[in-house]
Amino acid sequence: MRDAYHEELDTIGDGLVEMARLVGSAIGRATTALLDADLNIAESVIASDEKVDSLQRELENRAITLLARQQPVATDLRIVVTSLRMSADLERSGDLARHVAKLARLRFPVSAVPNDLHSTILEMGQLAQRLMAKAAEVIVSKDIDDAMQLEADDDRMDELHRALFQHLLDDRWKHGIETAVDVTLVGRYYERFADHAVSVAKRVIYLVTGEHADELSPAPTPVEGA
Amino acid sequence: MRDAYHEELDTIGDGLVEMARLVGSAIGRATTALLDADLNIAESVIASDEKVDSLQRELENRAITLLARQQPVATDLRIVVTSLRMSADLERSGDLARHVAKLARLRFPVSAVPNDLHSTILEMGQLAQRLMAKAAEVIVSKDIDDAMQLEADDDRMDELHRALFQHLLDDRWKHGIETAVDVTLVGRYYERFADHAVSVAKRVIYLVTGEHADELSPAPTPVEGA
Repeated sequence: MRDAYHEELDTIGDGLVEMARLVGSAIGRATTALLDADLNIAESVIASDEKVDSLQRELENRAITLLARQQPVATDLRIVVTSLRMSADLERSGDLARHVAKLARLRFPVSAVPNDLHSTILEMGQLAQRLMAKAAEVIVSKDIDDAMQLEADDDRMDELHRALFQHLLDDRWKHGIETAVDVTLVGRYYERFADHAVSVAKRVIYLVTGEHADELSPAPTPVEGA
Repeated sequence: MRDAYHEELDTIGDGLVEMARLVGSAIGRATTALLDADLNIAESVIASDEKVDSLQRELENRAITLLARQQPVATDLRIVVTSLRMSADLERSGDLARHVAKLARLRFPVSAVPNDLHSTILEMGQLAQRLMAKAAEVIVSKDIDDAMQLEADDDRMDELHRALFQHLLDDRWKHGIETAVDVTLVGRYYERFADHAVSVAKRVIYLVTGEHADELSPAPTPVEGA
């Protein structure tokens, strides 16, 4: 049987999983909104980000109350502090999904993404959603191998991001500056979203092992890194 | 006289101020590197970000040790938890300064910023540096009015960001796609840097009042928001 204290810790864990599922769904729907120029879906993503924000506030209040009342030490303290960090990652991921949806709304009724980049953006969106689904699983399973796998999976996002820039910088680019700006920002949103999913997984590794995975720094984009 | 416990809290506060000063200097130097195409300065900004990262790790370890050993409640607990969040803001600001410097390095020996945007980017860089200097002051003074002023000052960053996009999307833009991509990313880095400085100030408001300033969400860019 769980005591009230551990029940509260479980509630915090459940909140994290719920946030991860919401933002995973949000990035998937935002991608649909962007590629199909679907205004209704875009609006629903933008509206649902408030739910993510309120979940984060609730989770933070619970965590701080737990710190104050129960004064956990050792592993339990690590769980609470790490949960605060994960919730910040997830809240920010929700913002990024909202940014994608806002761009879809801004360019409606046309798609912000030209046809020759649809498949690249689709793959970025699907990968982002999949990484977040795996992060949610890892929060529950606390499986280190699965957590480490996320970082390897994220390499594909970096490849896609590079491919996006190569396409943009190709002399045959015909879509003008506005579309280039849109695609640049969208690429950055997906890349950062994926970074946050990886960060959540790395925090699970820290939780379980007590050791920080290598400090997470965003992968260099083709423009940042030579 | 301060006891050992409050001395430790002071040490954490000093660490935050040092981080804020380092990243404020970094964004100023990164702007110089970018506008003057100065490779040495770019390299120094990139190298100095490691110092910021190690300060953050040190500060986090101190904060967690303090939570475990001293089990603070009420105001002291709020200080420790909020310090952890501020250090995350400052670490991320350092990353953004490094991104600007990496772009300067990538385009060396030419400047990534065309002449007709130098003054806009210069003002964004100076404003970013000033906002962070004010954030550092507010960490020390805990002055609510000064903290609230940062958000007002940040409005100017949004104006500059809009001006940047207007210039990019003007039909007379002659600098091609690569430069448009560079300028888009650089604009985003400065805007996010400023958001983090404002976030630090808002966390000071929370520390002092116990009330969250409105949840900080990045200002919509001209492309995100209609």
